[in-house]
Amino acid sequence: MQLGVCYYPEQWPQAMWADDARRMHAMGIRIVRIAEFAWSKLEPKPGQYDWAWLDEAIETLAGAGLQIVLGTPTAAPPRWLLDQHPDMLALDAHGHPKGFGSRRHYCFSNEAFHAASRSIVEAMARRYGQHPAVIAWQTDNEYGCHDTVLSYSAAAVQGFRRWLAERYGTIAALNEAWGNVFWSMEYSSFEQIGAPVALPTFANPIHSLDYRRFASDEVIRFNRMQAEILRVHSPGRDVLHNFMGFFAEFEHHEMGRDLDVASWDNYPLGFTDMAHFIPDEDRLRWMRTGHPDVSAFNHDLYRGVCKGRWWVMEQQAGPVNWANANPAPLPGMVRTWTWEAFAHGAEVVSYFRWRQVPYAQEQMHSGLHTPDNQIDIGGTEATQVARELARLQPGPAGRARVALVFDYSAKWMHEIQPHGATIDYYSEVFSWYSALRRLGLDIDILPASTTSFAGYALIAVPALSTISETLVERLRASGAQLVFGPRSGAKTARFSVPEGLPPGALKTLLPMRVTRVESLRPGISIPVLAAGRELGSAGTWRDFVEPLGATEVLARFGDGHPAILRHGNARYFAGSFAAALLLDQLEGCAREAGVMVRRVDDGLRLRRRGKLQFAINHGPHSARVPAPAGARFVLGSEVLPAASVAAWEVGPQDEPA
Amino acid sequence: MQLGVCYYPEQWPQAMWADDARRMHAMGIRIVRIAEFAWSKLEPKPGQYDWAWLDEAIETLAGAGLQIVLGTPTAAPPRWLLDQHPDMLALDAHGHPKGFGSRRHYCFSNEAFHAASRSIVEAMARRYGQHPAVIAWQTDNEYGCHDTVLSYSAAAVQGFRRWLAERYGTIAALNEAWGNVFWSMEYSSFEQIGAPVALPTFANPIHSLDYRRFASDEVIRFNRMQAEILRVHSPGRDVLHNFMGFFAEFEHHEMGRDLDVASWDNYPLGFTDMAHFIPDEDRLRWMRTGHPDVSAFNHDLYRGVCKGRWWVMEQQAGPVNWANANPAPLPGMVRTWTWEAFAHGAEVVSYFRWRQVPYAQEQMHSGLHTPDNQIDIGGTEATQVARELARLQPGPAGRARVALVFDYSAKWMHEIQPHGATIDYYSEVFSWYSALRRLGLDIDILPASTTSFAGYALIAVPALSTISETLVERLRASGAQLVFGPRSGAKTARFSVPEGLPPGALKTLLPMRVTRVESLRPGISIPVLAAGRELGSAGTWRDFVEPLGATEVLARFGDGHPAILRHGNARYFAGSFAAALLLDQLEGCAREAGVMVRRVDDGLRLRRRGKLQFAINHGPHSARVPAPAGARFVLGSEVLPAASVAAWEVGPQDEPA
Amino acid sequence: MQLGVCYYPEQWPQAMWADDARRMHAMGIRIVRIAEFAWSKLEPKPGQYDWAWLDEAIETLAGAGLQIVLGTPTAAPPRWLLDQHPDMLALDAHGHPKGFGSRRHYCFSNEAFHAASRSIVEAMARRYGQHPAVIAWQTDNEYGCHDTVLSYSAAAVQGFRRWLAERYGTIAALNEAWGNVFWSMEYSSFEQIGAPVALPTFANPIHSLDYRRFASDEVIRFNRMQAEILRVHSPGRDVLHNFMGFFAEFEHHEMGRDLDVASWDNYPLGFTDMAHFIPDEDRLRWMRTGHPDVSAFNHDLYRGVCKGRWWVMEQQAGPVNWANANPAPLPGMVRTWTWEAFAHGAEVVSYFRWRQVPYAQEQMHSGLHTPDNQIDIGGTEATQVARELARLQPGPAGRARVALVFDYSAKWMHEIQPHGATIDYYSEVFSWYSALRRLGLDIDILPASTTSFAGYALIAVPALSTISETLVERLRASGAQLVFGPRSGAKTARFSVPEGLPPGALKTLLPMRVTRVESLRPGISIPVLAAGRELGSAGTWRDFVEPLGATEVLARFGDGHPAILRHGNARYFAGSFAAALLLDQLEGCAREAGVMVRRVDDGLRLRRRGKLQFAINHGPHSARVPAPAGARFVLGSEVLPAASVAAWEVGPQDEPA
Ligand SMILES: [Zn+2]
Ligand SMILES: [Zn+2]
Ligand SMILES: [Zn+2]
Repeated sequence: MQLGVCYYPEQWPQAMWADDARRMHAMGIRIVRIAEFAWSKLEPKPGQYDWAWLDEAIETLAGAGLQIVLGTPTAAPPRWLLDQHPDMLALDAHGHPKGFGSRRHYCFSNEAFHAASRSIVEAMARRYGQHPAVIAWQTDNEYGCHDTVLSYSAAAVQGFRRWLAERYGTIAALNEAWGNVFWSMEYSSFEQIGAPVALPTFANPIHSLDYRRFASDEVIRFNRMQAEILRVHSPGRDVLHNFMGFFAEFEHHEMGRDLDVASWDNYPLGFTDMAHFIPDEDRLRWMRTGHPDVSAFNHDLYRGVCKGRWWVMEQQAGPVNWANANPAPLPGMVRTWTWEAFAHGAEVVSYFRWRQVPYAQEQMHSGLHTPDNQIDIGGTEATQVARELARLQPGPAGRARVALVFDYSAKWMHEIQPHGATIDYYSEVFSWYSALRRLGLDIDILPASTTSFAGYALIAVPALSTISETLVERLRASGAQLVFGPRSGAKTARFSVPEGLPPGALKTLLPMRVTRVESLRPGISIPVLAAGRELGSAGTWRDFVEPLGATEVLARFGDGHPAILRHGNARYFAGSFAAALLLDQLEGCAREAGVMVRRVDDGLRLRRRGKLQFAINHGPHSARVPAPAGARFVLGSEVLPAASVAAWEVGPQDEPA
Repeated sequence: MQLGVCYYPEQWPQAMWADDARRMHAMGIRIVRIAEFAWSKLEPKPGQYDWAWLDEAIETLAGAGLQIVLGTPTAAPPRWLLDQHPDMLALDAHGHPKGFGSRRHYCFSNEAFHAASRSIVEAMARRYGQHPAVIAWQTDNEYGCHDTVLSYSAAAVQGFRRWLAERYGTIAALNEAWGNVFWSMEYSSFEQIGAPVALPTFANPIHSLDYRRFASDEVIRFNRMQAEILRVHSPGRDVLHNFMGFFAEFEHHEMGRDLDVASWDNYPLGFTDMAHFIPDEDRLRWMRTGHPDVSAFNHDLYRGVCKGRWWVMEQQAGPVNWANANPAPLPGMVRTWTWEAFAHGAEVVSYFRWRQVPYAQEQMHSGLHTPDNQIDIGGTEATQVARELARLQPGPAGRARVALVFDYSAKWMHEIQPHGATIDYYSEVFSWYSALRRLGLDIDILPASTTSFAGYALIAVPALSTISETLVERLRASGAQLVFGPRSGAKTARFSVPEGLPPGALKTLLPMRVTRVESLRPGISIPVLAAGRELGSAGTWRDFVEPLGATEVLARFGDGHPAILRHGNARYFAGSFAAALLLDQLEGCAREAGVMVRRVDDGLRLRRRGKLQFAINHGPHSARVPAPAGARFVLGSEVLPAASVAAWEVGPQDEPA
Repeated sequence: MQLGVCYYPEQWPQAMWADDARRMHAMGIRIVRIAEFAWSKLEPKPGQYDWAWLDEAIETLAGAGLQIVLGTPTAAPPRWLLDQHPDMLALDAHGHPKGFGSRRHYCFSNEAFHAASRSIVEAMARRYGQHPAVIAWQTDNEYGCHDTVLSYSAAAVQGFRRWLAERYGTIAALNEAWGNVFWSMEYSSFEQIGAPVALPTFANPIHSLDYRRFASDEVIRFNRMQAEILRVHSPGRDVLHNFMGFFAEFEHHEMGRDLDVASWDNYPLGFTDMAHFIPDEDRLRWMRTGHPDVSAFNHDLYRGVCKGRWWVMEQQAGPVNWANANPAPLPGMVRTWTWEAFAHGAEVVSYFRWRQVPYAQEQMHSGLHTPDNQIDIGGTEATQVARELARLQPGPAGRARVALVFDYSAKWMHEIQPHGATIDYYSEVFSWYSALRRLGLDIDILPASTTSFAGYALIAVPALSTISETLVERLRASGAQLVFGPRSGAKTARFSVPEGLPPGALKTLLPMRVTRVESLRPGISIPVLAAGRELGSAGTWRDFVEPLGATEVLARFGDGHPAILRHGNARYFAGSFAAALLLDQLEGCAREAGVMVRRVDDGLRLRRRGKLQFAINHGPHSARVPAPAGARFVLGSEVLPAASVAAWEVGPQDEPA
């Protein structure tokens, strides 16, 4: 477990480098990421490379005992490339180009851009691939940032047609699969198919979904091209990408197959301020600490992307510059976030950035040091973590007893066809995740493509639009308690209502029939009752379910329709449950599954790693941690102030197998 | 009075058709609408028709005893037409085309599209025009849906210039009429005139109004072309169009002259969710029943479009898929809506759709059957209506005693020059309509072009921007009590302030002078007083009126300006009155007019048809209907549960002549 | 001190002119502005002038004893110019042209438009420049109205490149100054630089700022071209422009150097309704009077633009037509606004407009007369002012004891990099101005470029992004009490964080270091305390300050960070203070500065001009004015009804020197 930092030697006088490197090492930092936006410095003119400065930077850093992550600079293509290929720009839905002057202006489908990227990546990999200090490569930077996955360029549309032709074979097959008989949308050739945007009204949802799948594949293709070059020229080094929190415009799990490590960029305050699915009152409440589940959700998600190997590549170290409001973290939070990441299993936490740069777009983005090179609060807290880490190296994170299934396609399907203006996938999934965390549980977030769920005691499946027979079999084989949320199995992979109605293939586990659904405006809530007692309420969404066979109805909505159904070890929640109801119901499932439930309040959260049980307090109050009497604390103590962390040793007997 | 259904044989296996047809007839359905989106199936390649499937579908349906409404498929032009005529697409205000991939992507001014439409309509009319089962034709589908009346293509702008040249004769006359001396907007040729959009600031309002009139005329021209073909090749059949609720981008009354029947598509829950003029609290309150005046308003409007003949072509039969929230109707509402339509005089109520289609854009739009071909709630309720209808055929709707004047140009003028961001025509008109309905009155909604108002006892004229001398004479000749709302007569037909100030020609009836107006933010309300007593309040809009001649002031605003004026049998309300004040004041007018007032609460509404008095309860509570003692009920009874209907027999003596 | 009126002879029959002119003079009006939108009447075809009507209009007006301000008509270029030069249109950020059909559709960078403007201005100036009745020229009309300063045409972008080349010399210097090493934004030629819009994410802030500076320079260049022509052909006449309230897209002070008089257009109700920085509750409260500081702010600002000479060129005389809500002014306000302008030192107050025009875009904009040529409320009140003025001519306004520094660049910098979605420059500056006015103070609003602050006792500097060493020296030299607001000195002129951190050069006055900042969502407030007592609170923005040297901390935020700092006679407020705290703190500063503080409540405001002390009551209640016992009132009396004005004589002894 190590600390790292993001550093931009090209942005500072060379005279500062050696001192920077020395102080990094002195602070306890061992890893430094560089070069990921430096294309114009590395290749100032087409084909003319300038390695001298990077050679020097690498030697300086390596000389100070630091290990290096090299970033490929493709997120910031230089201006001369645009002169050569004006068509390299991404286009919006109306065909407006996204201009030069920031970053990520490229279209993933532009082959000239691919070629130029290939050249710079190969040149860097050849030069530095075998350097002993270079331990890893980062491809590009935050794919999808600034809404850049989707482009509507001619190259993208042509690529889409080829992609469709490969997938469907004949245009007749596509017409059939898409249901183009509807509204006379039939095509006679793939060349007639355009992007599903700027139409008078809704596009055919499968048209939209296929475009998003295609766009996702384009990102993966671009990344794979880089990964393949790096593996040839830099054997033995980790290849990673720095994903973002809550960007889900491409299939992360699929890209994960081309990577060694899934790293991600953790800005808890920015995410809390901007995530649409966080209620405004929570946004204010957690403005200085981050919503207590915002980082953890992504930690648990990315741990599942590359077989458990993951880093935080960029860790917020002070105020950011890009949210609607940019408050300062509560003192202690930079340390707390760092420990939280380690508790969830991170190999590395790397701060963004060594020093705030006083110019250009990110001049208001803080770092470990102020622009005048004085250490800032985040720097001091990082130093403390480094000291603590030196005496404390927990083992691997291990597998949790509870899994939550997360699916990128489901998100896209919810966006394409929300069926209600305030409805989306993250709102549902995040509320389930939060409830499970309020129960004190460790959670693995897994893709729907997971091949084995063996070992899980409880598997939560909220809002998973498409459920294949294979998934049903794998879930059944797990023997776990299974809980499905509303809209699960609502669609086929071709974006239609399943034969025999939803939940489609899930019916073999949970015999039932969703005959109708409804979306509700905010402010509408429907009581959920059992045995005459009101258990809580639902809002936003409701399935009208007809139970079949031996399926029991455990609770009903106020108007008599089933709200909670059960068949064997599978349950179905037929509405979007309010937080309290969801918490109670999931607690019941967890207890039945035999996992240890420890309800925590406010900002307190638990996470075990190896032999250590961590408790993280996001505030706002101090909290008593649920440690057994006589527990041996290695961090903090039983009473935890806001913005701090405790850890105590646990044995294997503390968790029911 | 009959029930119908919308059916799409092309979307289902042919093997299902016969059973579908048989079950339709068994349910009591007698009319089936087909083919209105099937262009690509009927003409798969340019000029190559495929009639076989439609021949078969028609024979199957007719063979089961069903009568057929054939839709012309021009709302969904096939993809090959776009290959031939890329310029057929409608363009938005910035010149962006509206792409292929949904429907209604065509520009009404594109002559190549006219020609292609003419060909398919003529081909269909020739083939099926004399078929004995074909009783009617529907032209296109929901003109104006998805905001498709206005296009800014080169053809549209050229058409606009020709339209202007015809209307104004010379460019000098246009400059004079438009007042183009203002801001140096003078033209020296019609060729210099563009669309009134994408300008630095407001266009000249008459420029905008003329563009909307032109666009309306283009829709009417397109429809007339179809109607003329159908009359030639399909004599004796009704020609109709399915209008929408609250789409008012073209002159429905004018189009009505080319039709035999005005049909419309009634989605009470969707309209309630989406209509901007319904307050949010009402939106929630009526989310499962529809606002109690939303369907009725359109019934009463469309009854006036084709000399009293009207249908509901598409009746909501379950949740829709297109509103911001899409709740399920309260059980009973599908039946109740159907009876409500009949109470208002509908000849036919036709449900949308026979069966929910599991794919493409409307896969979440319910029908009488679920996608797995099981009957749904709406289907069951339709069956009940059919049984009830069998024993109950009321006579024609007859003329009401109360008229409300509705004018498409007034709506456009309010939109072009609202003079206040929250102000619009529907808000005012709908609140007047609602108040009259709360008084238990039957209402005819009439165009300003109505030639005779004879027989009406009370005529309400809210917010009618332009009042011609002819209209004044016709209103005067009616002898009715007349009530004018704010902004009545505020503008000339050339969109200017009338000479001598508003209310223009209305002055001869109501001598007064509107010297000034004001718009007010939500939250501002101004008391209205008479004889020291506060009668209620006004908000949003106020006219400052100077009474002239013998005009009396019946009430004043808190600051002394006249609020209610009267001259002879004409009254003027000088502000946008809050609901309670409007209700009280219109009640006074109704009583003075000698019409029977029966205040109803909540969701209860009354409507007489022939010898039957209907009471419709939209809920949320059960209600006691105002039937005389001993009334003979043919539907329901004196106490009416929510979401239900009652009807009792009345004699002519029950209504004061 | 005189009254004027805006008049459009071309919009009315010639037969009305003489009577209009006679009545103007009879009312007491002495100045009339004409012709500023009449290009198409003056030059109906390219190069063919029609002077006859204007000759006649001028003779008629002059003959009635009126003096004339002639407007150049360049704000409304005629349609034929667009035929000649289709590229004259301004383009939006996506390249969409702003079409013909309203006004201000031109691009300031289009040279063909410059040439055409030069011709019409020169032709007018030659013809009327020496006319004895012509006393002044107005250039164009409301530069910047309808957001028309920024254009993204090819000419604009080319001009920007030339502007940059002149400013930076070499592309290397630009890359260095802009920090283009960041994100590989380096250019190799000026020809590669585009407009900083339509990018995937933020542009480099200096890129944006330079584009706005360039655009401002283009406006100034266009105006200077006109001013130079006018000075040649119309010597001795004042050249002025009519600026707007709260339009700040170009450097008004810089343009002021080319003008003799700064006139502005005062629409207090429209500004109150539309200004984003006015809280909604105030918007409603002052809807009929205007926020009490809205006119005054601009009076005090424009007085500083042309060495003290300023007019109100257009004074609201009734409801306007362009705000979101357009209420009628409270009776008395037109008179009150007029006197308020005189109290602040106006030479002329000219009403908009003589008569409401019944057609085209402004048909709902009131004037002194209704469209049917009857005098309206505003006309009656203007007549009263004229009578009052006849017996009451106060001396010049003189210099105030309190200055507030306002800077256009600071506004742009706040917009380019607000660092918080709800944050902007006007919100901060206007709240400071309001607080100072609530203290009863007279205020001069001065540019940051002011060469001498001698004579001021108190200088307020809120949110001044860039503070140069020169400014620091000039402020120090003044000897005044100095109060700086948050973000003062936060940036260099090259839009970067100053070396050694903010407040940059201000450090020599106020030794301190802003190590971090934060923006806060609405609803968050942080207490400010001193000696254990809560003084008030701050929200929206906070600087984290480390005091250096002898700088004292006078108050702290709840978490201990300094909130108010002081060094010598300079104070720094480290947050966006809520109104009450700001009022108290500025009162302390004012008392220490030795200026006379008289707290006024609600809508009462004070302003001295020459020997007269004015009190203006914007309502809503009557108010007792703070006149000394026995004061001689020349207008009103001690108790002032809402919407009225009082003035009493004061001696020099009433103000502490
Ligand atoms: Zn290329
Ligand atoms: Zn565009
Ligand atoms: Zn064509």
